[in-house]
Parts: sequence; C-alpha cells; structure tokens
Amino acid sequence: MTELPTDMRASVLRGVRDLAVERRPVPEPGPRELLVRVEAVGTCGSDTHYYEHGRIGDFVVREPLVLGHEAAGTVVAHGPGADPRRVGERVSLEPGVPCFTCTQCRRGRYNLCPGMRFFATPPVDGAFCEYVALHEGFAHPVPDDMPLERAALIEPLSVAVWACRKARVEPGTRVLVTGAGPVGLLAVQCARAFGAPEVVVTDVRPHRLELAAALGATGTLDARRTTCADAGFTPDVLLECSGVAAVTGEALRTVGRAGRAVLVGMGGDEIPLPLAHVQQYEIEVTGTFRYADTWPAAIGLASGGAVALDPLVSHRFGLADVAAALTVAARDETAVKAVVLPRE
Amino acid sequence: MTELPTDMRASVLRGVRDLAVERRPVPEPGPRELLVRVEAVGTCGSDTHYYEHGRIGDFVVREPLVLGHEAAGTVVAHGPGADPRRVGERVSLEPGVPCFTCTQCRRGRYNLCPGMRFFATPPVDGAFCEYVALHEGFAHPVPDDMPLERAALIEPLSVAVWACRKARVEPGTRVLVTGAGPVGLLAVQCARAFGAPEVVVTDVRPHRLELAAALGATGTLDARRTTCADAGFTPDVLLECSGVAAVTGEALRTVGRAGRAVLVGMGGDEIPLPLAHVQQYEIEVTGTFRYADTWPAAIGLASGGAVALDPLVSHRFGLADVAAALTVAARDETAVKAVVLPRE
Amino acid sequence: MTELPTDMRASVLRGVRDLAVERRPVPEPGPRELLVRVEAVGTCGSDTHYYEHGRIGDFVVREPLVLGHEAAGTVVAHGPGADPRRVGERVSLEPGVPCFTCTQCRRGRYNLCPGMRFFATPPVDGAFCEYVALHEGFAHPVPDDMPLERAALIEPLSVAVWACRKARVEPGTRVLVTGAGPVGLLAVQCARAFGAPEVVVTDVRPHRLELAAALGATGTLDARRTTCADAGFTPDVLLECSGVAAVTGEALRTVGRAGRAVLVGMGGDEIPLPLAHVQQYEIEVTGTFRYADTWPAAIGLASGGAVALDPLVSHRFGLADVAAALTVAARDETAVKAVVLPRE
Amino acid sequence: MTELPTDMRASVLRGVRDLAVERRPVPEPGPRELLVRVEAVGTCGSDTHYYEHGRIGDFVVREPLVLGHEAAGTVVAHGPGADPRRVGERVSLEPGVPCFTCTQCRRGRYNLCPGMRFFATPPVDGAFCEYVALHEGFAHPVPDDMPLERAALIEPLSVAVWACRKARVEPGTRVLVTGAGPVGLLAVQCARAFGAPEVVVTDVRPHRLELAAALGATGTLDARRTTCADAGFTPDVLLECSGVAAVTGEALRTVGRAGRAVLVGMGGDEIPLPLAHVQQYEIEVTGTFRYADTWPAAIGLASGGAVALDPLVSHRFGLADVAAALTVAARDETAVKAVVLPRE
Repeated sequence: MTELPTDMRASVLRGVRDLAVERRPVPEPGPRELLVRVEAVGTCGSDTHYYEHGRIGDFVVREPLVLGHEAAGTVVAHGPGADPRRVGERVSLEPGVPCFTCTQCRRGRYNLCPGMRFFATPPVDGAFCEYVALHEGFAHPVPDDMPLERAALIEPLSVAVWACRKARVEPGTRVLVTGAGPVGLLAVQCARAFGAPEVVVTDVRPHRLELAAALGATGTLDARRTTCADAGFTPDVLLECSGVAAVTGEALRTVGRAGRAVLVGMGGDEIPLPLAHVQQYEIEVTGTFRYADTWPAAIGLASGGAVALDPLVSHRFGLADVAAALTVAARDETAVKAVVLPRE
Repeated sequence: MTELPTDMRASVLRGVRDLAVERRPVPEPGPRELLVRVEAVGTCGSDTHYYEHGRIGDFVVREPLVLGHEAAGTVVAHGPGADPRRVGERVSLEPGVPCFTCTQCRRGRYNLCPGMRFFATPPVDGAFCEYVALHEGFAHPVPDDMPLERAALIEPLSVAVWACRKARVEPGTRVLVTGAGPVGLLAVQCARAFGAPEVVVTDVRPHRLELAAALGATGTLDARRTTCADAGFTPDVLLECSGVAAVTGEALRTVGRAGRAVLVGMGGDEIPLPLAHVQQYEIEVTGTFRYADTWPAAIGLASGGAVALDPLVSHRFGLADVAAALTVAARDETAVKAVVLPRE
Repeated sequence: MTELPTDMRASVLRGVRDLAVERRPVPEPGPRELLVRVEAVGTCGSDTHYYEHGRIGDFVVREPLVLGHEAAGTVVAHGPGADPRRVGERVSLEPGVPCFTCTQCRRGRYNLCPGMRFFATPPVDGAFCEYVALHEGFAHPVPDDMPLERAALIEPLSVAVWACRKARVEPGTRVLVTGAGPVGLLAVQCARAFGAPEVVVTDVRPHRLELAAALGATGTLDARRTTCADAGFTPDVLLECSGVAAVTGEALRTVGRAGRAVLVGMGGDEIPLPLAHVQQYEIEVTGTFRYADTWPAAIGLASGGAVALDPLVSHRFGLADVAAALTVAARDETAVKAVVLPRE
Repeated sequence: MTELPTDMRASVLRGVRDLAVERRPVPEPGPRELLVRVEAVGTCGSDTHYYEHGRIGDFVVREPLVLGHEAAGTVVAHGPGADPRRVGERVSLEPGVPCFTCTQCRRGRYNLCPGMRFFATPPVDGAFCEYVALHEGFAHPVPDDMPLERAALIEPLSVAVWACRKARVEPGTRVLVTGAGPVGLLAVQCARAFGAPEVVVTDVRPHRLELAAALGATGTLDARRTTCADAGFTPDVLLECSGVAAVTGEALRTVGRAGRAVLVGMGGDEIPLPLAHVQQYEIEVTGTFRYADTWPAAIGLASGGAVALDPLVSHRFGLADVAAALTVAARDETAVKAVVLPRE
C-alpha cells in the first residue's frame, strides 16, 4: 500500500456562485469507516441549486461546503472496527448514513431518518474532493468490470429504483414518465427493467425524447404539442421527474384507476392535487426522498445490462472545473450528465 | 308468505329541491336478485347535494330519481337463480353492483368498476321507497339482534372501514381525524377498533367534539382555536373527513414521516398538496371512493360492540318527509344523522 | 360470416386410458358468452394425470370428459349480452370462470372461488375439441402477430406470472427454480422478466438445463451431482416446479432470510416443512392454485419478447392423437410441450 | 444519584440443571449504552430449555451463561454518547441488538440480522442479575403508572404483536390460536386488539381455556375432545403457539382460503406440511423469530388496557430461586408465567 497523503484538494463552495479548490486534510476514517479515494462524481441538480442559491428549502449553506454526492472510488484505508480486507476494493458510495436506531431506521425506511448525515447537505461535506471517509456498510463493492464512472451513477439510478419500487412497477404496468432529464431517463430504463411493457415519456426537448427512445421508452410525447390526455394514454403509474407543477398537475389527471403517482422531481412547496380524480380513481400519490437499500439492486441492473448508465455521461471535468460542470446544462443543450473526475 | 303489493310509495326527486312521494311499481327481482322491503334508510350528504343542486360533479340528475343508499330491510321475494331460502332474512344492503369482469373487479377493487350501478346515482334509483331489488350477493344478512336502523348504517361504517384499511391503521398507529361529521365519528371509532391507541379529532363544533370523545376519541381539538401543528400532535395517519380544502392542506402538513393521508371528505375538484412535505416525509396520499368487501367486517364491528352506530341517529322521518330529513342538519345543529323509515 | 356447423369433433375421455374422438353438438353460447373455434391447445401434466388415473385428488372423472385447458382460437359467435363486435377476434382463453360474488371473488382472488368452473376439471369439459363457449371476459384478445399456438401457451405462462407475483420477484431478487419442466422453464423466463438478475435452475435432465440456460437462466445445477446447498447459492425466492417432495424439502432449506418459497409443482398431499429454518429465517411458504388476472400481463410478456413460448413446443398432434400427445413425454425425452391442433 | 456498586449478584447457568448465584462485576455501559438496574424478569420456555438441555438447536451453552431476556428496570447510568437525561427512567428492555447495517437491518427486519446479540443466547448473557448494559435505543421508556413487572412482559407481548402483524389480523379476521400457554394467551388478546371479532383457542388444559376466555377468546376448544375440523371453525388466520407438530399439522388443514398460518411455537426441526391444502387454498405459512419494532405498539396495548399482562403472572421468585422459577410449570399446573425479581 502506497503511503497516503496528509492533505488533498477539495472543491469548496464558499458562497453563492463561489467555488474554489482548497487544500484540506485527508479525512481520518472513524470507527467502522473506510477511507475512499474518489475517482468519479456525478453532478446533480441539487449541487447546481446550492451553487446558485446557497440553499435548498430549509437546508442553508452557512459554512464552506464541499458539494457532490454521486461518487465512486477505491478503498485506501480503514478506521477502527472496519474490515481491513476491503482496502483495494472498488466501491460505489451510498452518500447518506442514518442513525440506525430511530423508528424510521428500524422500519427499513432509513432514508427518512431525522438524524441522517448526507453528503453535500449542510453541514456535511460531499465528494468533490480527493478522499472521503464513509461507514463501511455504505461503500458498496462493484464488479471488476464496472468502470468507476458508471459506479458513481448508481446513486441517481437508486433514485429511479426507489421510485419504481414505490410505484410497484411490474410486468403489465403501463408507465408514464414526465421529464427526460437524467432521473427521467433512468426512470424509463428502470421501469422497463421492472418489467413494464409500455413506458411513455414526455418532455419538451426533442433530443431528450430521442435519447429516451434509444434507452427503451416505448413511446415519446413532445409536451409542447400533445398533452398526455390527447395521446389517449392512461398510465397505471406516473413517475413524475420534471418538477414542474403544471406538468405534474396535468399528468396526475391522466393516471388510471387504482394508479400510483410517484413525485420524484422537486418543484416548490406546493402543487395542485386533483382531489376528485384522486378520490374517484383512488390514486395513490407519494413522493420520494432519496432511497433505502437500493444499491445491490441498482448495481445488478447496471452490471447486467438492464440499465445503461454510460450514455448519460455527456461531459467530464476536473476538480478545478466544478463550477463549469454545475452550469454546463445551461450552456449546452446536449448536456445530460456531467461527471467530475477529481484525479484528472 | 304474504302476497306482495304490485305498487309502492317512493320519494322521487323531480328537480332541484323538488321531492314528492309517487306510486311506482314494485320492482321485479331479476336474475340472482332479491326483493327487499326497505325498513330504514340513512341520509347522506350526497343525497342532500343532489336534492339541492341536482348534480354531483359529472353525475347529473336528468330523469326523476329516487335517492337514498344507506338501506336495510327484509327479503320478501327472489328472482331467478337467487337462493329462495333467503326470503325472510334481515339484510343490510351494499348499494353498488359492479360488472364483475373488468380489470378492477378482477383485482378486488370493484368499487372502481366503470360499469358500477350504484343506488341513488343517476340513472340508478335508490332506496327512499318501500321495495328495492338487489343482487343477492349484495344483500348481507345481519344478526337477529341487530335493529335494521343500525343495519342501514353499515353503509357509512363501510366508508370508515375502507379508509382505515387504506391507511393501514393498527396498534401503535397515531391517527388524526379531521371533521366530526357522521363519517368522521365513524372513522374515530373504526380507527380505535383497528387498534389505534391515539385518535385525535378536530372540528369547529364543540358538541361534535364531545360526541367524538364519548365515542372513543382520545383527544379533541377545536379547530377555531388550535391548529393541529400547535397541538404538537404528529399523526401517522390522517383520515380527512371534513372536505374543506384549507383543513386538508393544513392537516397534511402535520402528518409524520412515512405517514398515510386518506382523503375521504369530498371537497371540490382541486386542493393544494404540500409537495415538499409529501416528498421529504414520503407521505402516501390517497382518496377513497366508496368501498369494496367491507360489509362482513363492518357488521362484525357493529354487532360486537366495537363501533356504536345508534348514537349517530339523531332524527327519524317518514317517506313523506325525505326533504325534511335531507335538510335537518341546516336547521338543527344537534343533528348528526337522519334516518328515513319508509314504513312509518 | 360462414354458417356454423351444428356438431363438432371432440376428444372424449371415457375411462382410464380411454380417449376417443366423438361427435358432439357445437355448444350454444349462453348469456355473455362467446363461441370460440379452437385452433391450438397445449397439453398439461394434469391432462395426462386424468388420462392415466381418472382423477386428481378429490376431482374424479365420473362422466365422459373433454380434457385440455390451454387453448386459443377465433371468436365465431356470441351469446346474448356479449359484444357482437368481438366475432372474428383472435383470443387466448382463460379457462376458469368464477362465481364473481363470493368473498374470494370480491377480494381479487377469484382463482380460489369455490364455485369456479374450470375447463377439463370434472364435470366441466375442456378444449380438446373444435368449439368451446366461454364468458366474454375470459376470452382475451391477442395481438395480430401472435400465432394462436403461442396464444394457447399464455395459460402455462400465467402460472409462472402468478408464482412470480406471489414471490415478489423484482430487480435484486435471487431466484432458485427447481425443475425445468414446461412450468419451470416459464418460471425462469418470468423471473428474469420481473427483473431478477440471478435465476438458477435445477433438474436431473441435462438437455432441460441447456434449454433453461438458452432461455435466460443465469445458472444451472444438475441435481444428480450437486445439491443447492453445495453450490453455495442462497436464493431470496424459491419457485418450486418439480413437484418432488424430497427436492422441495431440500430446496426450502437453502432459502435465505426473509425469503419466499412458492410451491407450484403438485406432488402429493404432504411434504416435510423445515420448521426451525422457516422460523429462524421467517421464510414465507405458499402454494399456487391457478392464477387470477394474469392474462394481460402474460400476453404483454409473450408479445414483447420478454418471454419466449415457441421454443417450448416440441410436438404437435391432431384431435385424433390426443392420447399420443398426453404420453409423448414418457416416450421421448426431448419432449417439452405437446400441442393439439384440432383443425389438423 | 446514589453511588453504583462495583459488583452484583447474577444467576449463572454453569451446566445442565446447574444454576448458582455468583458475584460478577456490574457491567460498564459502552458507547451509546445505558446501565439498567433490573427490577423484574419474566421466565420463558427457552430459559427452561437451556437449563434442562444446555442448548437450543444450534445454540449451545459452552461457557457459564446468565439466562433471562424478558426484563424491565430503571436506568442508573449511561455510557459515552448515550443521553444522560435518561438516568432515572423506567424502561422495558428489548433484549436483542442487531448490527444495524446488514441487508436485513436495512430492510426493517433486524430480527433476522445474522450479527444479532441477544440476551441469554450463547455467548451473550441475559438479565437474571442485578444490572445489565444495553444500547439506549433498546431500552424503551414505559408510562409512570406501568409496574415494572408488567413492563418486563412487553417482551412476550411483542412476540404476539409480531405474529398478528405477520398474519395481517384486522377487523373481520377469524383467528385460531392453538395452545394457551403464555404466548397463546397473549396472541388471543393481541388478535382481539388488532380487531379480530372471533378468536378461538385450543388447548388440552381446561383451566387455561378458562383463562383464555376470561382474557377475550370468543371460543375455546378442548383439543382432547374436539378437533378444530369437528367444530366447524374455518379460520382466516392460524397463530400456532403450541409447538406440537401434530397440532400444527391438523390446524393447518382447517385454515380457509387465502388464509395465513404463523408458526410461533417452536417444536423441532420438521413438521408435515399439507401441500395440497396449502396450494389449493393458497395459504401463506410462515414462522416468527423474535420481533422487530414492536415495543412502542406493545407498550401502547399494555398501558391502554387492550391487553392484560398482570393475569399471566402466577409466581414470583428471587434471584436465588431461578431454578425453581424455571421449573415451576412442571410442578404446578396452575402456573402460567413465573417472574424473577432480582432485588427481592
């Protein structure tokens, strides 16, 4: 084992639209923690939102913060009590560690743990840096032939897996995905992998719809021209990935009897709920907040070929260019997902 | 067996606020139907709504209509294929007969059957009359010692049973019931019967809160003075029975992590959904539309003493006074549930 | 529409090992029934069992009986109340029609209806004949490009769909299928279609294991040489399709914590249950009896290519050779599924 | 706070039928642990089994072991990281602490955690002693007015709560409880508290049946005279609490369509499973292994009066008489549950 450095480079958010690479001490892995050399980190809309606004709802960046929570890397050291044999292992990081003993944790819904410590959520630093320490149970081994860039995207794939589970997608389920952003594109693929024979996706960007079709959507709808209702498609399941209130409201009205609507896209504090429709069709509406126990299933989907992650990566940046990575979507409409490679 | 009359009295809605007793032929029981002499019929807000507005949403009264769908009576004859031994049986009527073979029917959600024929829903006549014919599978026998007035209220009790099932109420579940109308009062009792240790109810009418407490609510909240949030009560389950959009919106925000909100009260086409709260707490929001397979359980609750139906009956009327029955709540604030007794 | 004949050929079981083609009247479609010209009928182990033993458990053949319950054909006429536009439609037949109103029917478990009338189950005739009449809700349309031979095999596929639903197979689930007979081969494919990344199948016939691998099994185990335990595979789900008590007993002991074991294969009245293992791992053990509401999903799987049915058809026979069809497996070890084509 | 002693008395199992009070150091509470002064400990069949056989299945007593796992007491000190305000709190102890991060823990089934450390299960000491240290999340506060003897019995009540949850008992469910030992008596009460209108219990001891009836059973069956089948009772749910293979086998055959059988009683490695019945009725059979997240619900049931625990306590012993406590049932047929009071 090569000797570890004592300090590292980290991209630090110091204020709104103020990111800089700083030197920070390499974290010391605590009890049952592993130290992971970060190899790839996906960028997410929430990172961009913190960068541009300094907050997301009640979560406010008050101290300098390292962003980034879609990470993969290599285990380089271990803390007390952690398994030393894991050094050298290639891992995908589940970026939130709960308290383990609250009611939500006990019931298998640890994503709802009030004591959750989650990467890149104030005041917890994220992974746009060279090394992170993480509880060994949350650093998941990936197959030898899985590139670490792909392993980083197990995180957004987990969002889609969680949504499909909540929606109870299975063979026979007709699915509508609204929004063909990265999560929507993963939701499309995931729904197919859960057995859905029909997955229709809507967006206003034709190239995104094309990509969705290439990734397995059985139908696409340009929302500028056709409403879901016009298209005559009555989904059993809505996976809302646009975060646009008007889209959500309209899409909810297309859901069929006993359907499920899972609201994944974040979009403000309040949306209109079509009460009479929800009642007469007994539609179940819920939202997702991260995920719980999705990594093994998501790794299986990504390594078995059921879900393609690589086509989502449109841009790559070094640690010095995190700001560019977080804003590329605004400049380049072909952007899907930018990845930060801290070692480049 | 005494000979049956050929015609009967029926209270017919001929237009908005225009109810009259007419003579109509006694219905002929069709294949697998029983003819039931109606002994007691509860009044429901939907009856009043049809009486005052001539419609509920898309359901419009275009032809003269007999209202009333909370009925009990005695079997007096049978149609072809129905079991002749049931003549003489005392029955509570489940007022909607589905198509049996659509997807919803096959999946045990026959309440969502698009082909449902439901009492007092245009163009299907209801039970404010002396005799009704109904599929034998929907005329449920009640114990000998259950008064038929109580048997009539198995219908609204079914609404509460269905809501508790959807909400997965069980021992350990903290429940908030908003609205102490008849359905709210039944929801309180039902939640207790499903094992809920804490059931808090809100209303603006002190006498209703008192009644709720007498029927088993462990806490009451005068909504004019205290909000749920102020009271510091974080329910696992919300059973919304007020139908007031503002109440629903506020109540949804009090529901705890992984909670369930079942919207029972009808209240317009659209309500505001607190998206961020629903997502961060992964609250499941759904509505109820009638019920499916609730009668045996509801009869068990009502006959075993777990739920008291008799205290809900505040007024009784004859067939000539259905209009008075449907409007008594507006005149008399002590009114809870008016029952029509067609034979008096 | 060509005129229908008044009588038809039917293969009738007159006693143990006594099958003969007889002329029988073409059935008259009753209320809501369709008359279907049978084009293809799969043979099933239960048909063979009736042929060889004259009974299955409590079901005894007392009167001449037409066997065959895996059927597809073309609608040629309709009874009163059935949709006349369906004449000409190509359909896969769901061979059991329940009572619709018992508790099981109401709860969406119509396969458990005590009043079920099921093809080829005494005293109800099956489909080894030229025409059958069936409730219109149980004659499911198939896509234009689905051959009717394939449409006939939607029935055994439904058995596998039902087993996968009961087992809650989804991405991440490790599945063990014991027995690579026709149902086992469909269970393998179905489990993959439900998202299972690993599906291991065991059998004692190498050519069956090869076929299983070709159809998507990720692992095969020759049960003569290796036990499941030796192989070190700990499934989350066991789909038992062998019907051999010793196989079942051993396989149950390999199921992992919180696993599900679905016993599909019929194999006598009693098997040994490893109580301590079932308790310590809280394994859920259940059996399947036919299926409920599986046709649309199964048709989707078969038409979308997720499940291949054609490779199962190893032999074809005419109506005069039903006895040969039912016994081919005993004579020819390459036999998988024999199909009867009544018009050839 | 009074000073804590440095050593304590503990009842130690040194070999088969060899129990002695020894002096042991008072345990030091570790990270996040509380030190609890034990006030009451129920005795359980598993304690007796270890006492008489030195093992239960694969769990073998190789070193001296303190038995007892149904405990309650008062918090007297806290370890690092535990909440110091809890000192003085009266608590019921959940006696097993899992690893928190394995798949089972993540999914809310921590009772199945392979790394579970459970009181009185070799090599982990139990609670027949004066002080125990336990993770703060597993020492559950009880209401001020709940005697600690009752608080100790939250543990066996948890077994019954877990069984009722697995069986999905609710209003309308007909329940059969086989065996009126302590767990059976709690299962009866729990099933009623979950809303079951009919709970029939079988045993061979008339005085136990009487006690069951006094505690809420709606029917009792003396198994020496009447079989369940004779009695014509078709349960939806079987809660098997006898641990007698023949009883289990017979009882399984009485379970109705789509019924659930939860095997709670331990009774050897293997029992006969009525395969054909399980298949034709699609009965779900499972076992219970301890419980997960049951304490809050069980405390609610015991404090709200829905379940009576006090009538189960038939005998009390001091720490010097644990052997007598563990064998009283063999000597005194009126014994139900013996409790050890370490401070007396």
